[in-house]
Amino acid sequence: MKLYAIIMAGGSGTRFWPASRKKNPKQLLPLGPSERALLVDTAERLLPIIARERIYVATSELLSDRIAELLPDLPREQILAEPVGRNTAPCIGWAASILHERDPDAVLAVMPSDHIVQDLPALHRAIELAELAAKGGSLVTMGIRPTRPETGFGYLEMGEELAPGVHRALRFIEKPDLDRAVEFYRSSHYLWNAGMFFFQARTILDAIDEFLPELGEGLRDIGKARGTPDELKVLRERFATLPEISIDHGVMERASNVAVIPVSCGWSDLGSWQAAWELADKDENDNVLPEGAIAIDSSGCYAIGKKDKVLAIVGMKDMVIVDTDDALLILPRNRSQDVRAIVEELKARGDSRF
Amino acid sequence: MKLYAIIMAGGSGTRFWPASRKKNPKQLLPLGPSERALLVDTAERLLPIIARERIYVATSELLSDRIAELLPDLPREQILAEPVGRNTAPCIGWAASILHERDPDAVLAVMPSDHIVQDLPALHRAIELAELAAKGGSLVTMGIRPTRPETGFGYLEMGEELAPGVHRALRFIEKPDLDRAVEFYRSSHYLWNAGMFFFQARTILDAIDEFLPELGEGLRDIGKARGTPDELKVLRERFATLPEISIDHGVMERASNVAVIPVSCGWSDLGSWQAAWELADKDENDNVLPEGAIAIDSSGCYAIGKKDKVLAIVGMKDMVIVDTDDALLILPRNRSQDVRAIVEELKARGDSRF
Repeated sequence: MKLYAIIMAGGSGTRFWPASRKKNPKQLLPLGPSERALLVDTAERLLPIIARERIYVATSELLSDRIAELLPDLPREQILAEPVGRNTAPCIGWAASILHERDPDAVLAVMPSDHIVQDLPALHRAIELAELAAKGGSLVTMGIRPTRPETGFGYLEMGEELAPGVHRALRFIEKPDLDRAVEFYRSSHYLWNAGMFFFQARTILDAIDEFLPELGEGLRDIGKARGTPDELKVLRERFATLPEISIDHGVMERASNVAVIPVSCGWSDLGSWQAAWELADKDENDNVLPEGAIAIDSSGCYAIGKKDKVLAIVGMKDMVIVDTDDALLILPRNRSQDVRAIVEELKARGDSRF
Repeated sequence: MKLYAIIMAGGSGTRFWPASRKKNPKQLLPLGPSERALLVDTAERLLPIIARERIYVATSELLSDRIAELLPDLPREQILAEPVGRNTAPCIGWAASILHERDPDAVLAVMPSDHIVQDLPALHRAIELAELAAKGGSLVTMGIRPTRPETGFGYLEMGEELAPGVHRALRFIEKPDLDRAVEFYRSSHYLWNAGMFFFQARTILDAIDEFLPELGEGLRDIGKARGTPDELKVLRERFATLPEISIDHGVMERASNVAVIPVSCGWSDLGSWQAAWELADKDENDNVLPEGAIAIDSSGCYAIGKKDKVLAIVGMKDMVIVDTDDALLILPRNRSQDVRAIVEELKARGDSRF
């Protein structure tokens, strides 16, 4: 039984506008401490424990060429391009059905492509535990030990220990209010749901058949056409009809054989410009600035500039500055979430720059 | 005796960096309330009282083509291109010698090209008075009645009235400290030196011969070569050797026949981004923003954007934002003077973007 990675890289969020765009979403941007795209960092993190030939990327048709460029050593058949985004259950189900066909004993590690993990050994140890539990037949999720009372994430409630380092997952909990988040933070039984899942391809396909039979049906139709002249036609037509639901809601929350591996691994979902600043290497004034910038009396700023363009700032405190070809954003770091309001405004205008 | 304008448009200041550059200095930028270059506004202000064929622009070889484009109706021979900048005395002396040759009775109105005047009738009345006094043989300057205790300008002390609206100029005063500036502001005898001068070509050439004989000699050498095959060669060689001095220091402060016309005409030297904001048409939040900008909780900002680029700002108060192809400047409006420090830094780096 071999472990395969499925890196999910189809998303197109708006929180890093104007750097992120539909065709250049967060996972393709070098927003972490390294100078590489987050997706490339994600793949590099897995390479020490999963061989390249077993690393797959699930993405959209729109992004698959860009991703092939970013990961030139990855064989093209390991990039799975969804014809249309239908949330994570169809994405994972489709990838599982393909991998199950290639290797009936495949064990899957499903990973988001746009997160940061700073403690690599801790992550690798947790993946090994998760792999074991998955081989035992569980649907496994990784739960991050909270480092603050965060209201922006879903949580997992952890039950009794099933094996060393492996617990029963009692339930999935939606984003809490601050009181509950504080309670979760103080307890040791609640973990952040980081969207990392581990299971045998067979196990998740069976669970899909049980909880999302319509999806199971669709995946079988798509599978039957695989390798035939109709493959792409069936994929495009049928994929668009699959139920649009997350693997969390559709399967994990309903199944009884769910295990959770608690882990502290310096994880961040890198959810805003604020988070990007927090994680970046900063200069002596806590600034993150493009090369050649001139900063006078400025501190705590995070700026993304353009090549061969000088940025000059005076008296700027804790600001985010993002300069791209067709948009310039300037806002206080602690208002990073207001980026969404701007993108909404652009959408309302019918402006394609969002 | 006819009045000719000499608009001085050779300067290349740094206070409007990064919008202003050596090849695109302040006078060529639309920084005033109109959407036209300041130089074009200056010419338009004079046209009601000085015919186009008597309006001259003195500038540098570097800028003369751009100026010809901006003023397409101005005959090219009315654009006088200095081979090298040597301050205002050589500039005005050279222009005076050319005009004196074309019209021995020429009366000159020497005007900066990068200022703002909002009360046009008041300016025109003052020019008429100045013209009369110049025809009477005086070296005439226009003095702006102070509207604040400004420490950034030179002043003129006004003496007895020589004719209605025309006073003897007792002395030129360097930029005062704040105490003296307050004293000047409270008195009615001190005026801002706005760099506007009126005299017969003959009068100023005589004064140059008296106070700057080396300049007079040089202008005669250049004049002798005019119309010969050597004209450009002599101009280039000889101009570079002329004494580099302002008309104020070199002539006006030393002469005894200096008159001053006090005037209130809504004048501004538009000396900084702060001044540009003060004079601009502002929206309901006191912002001056490029078309299509999105401003959330922002007020008192002055932003120059790029065509087809959206500017999005959140929580910005009283900031200046100037976005150009190769530089982006962001600073508080009340620190507009810090632009010089930035340009100095770029110069020190050997960066050509200043």
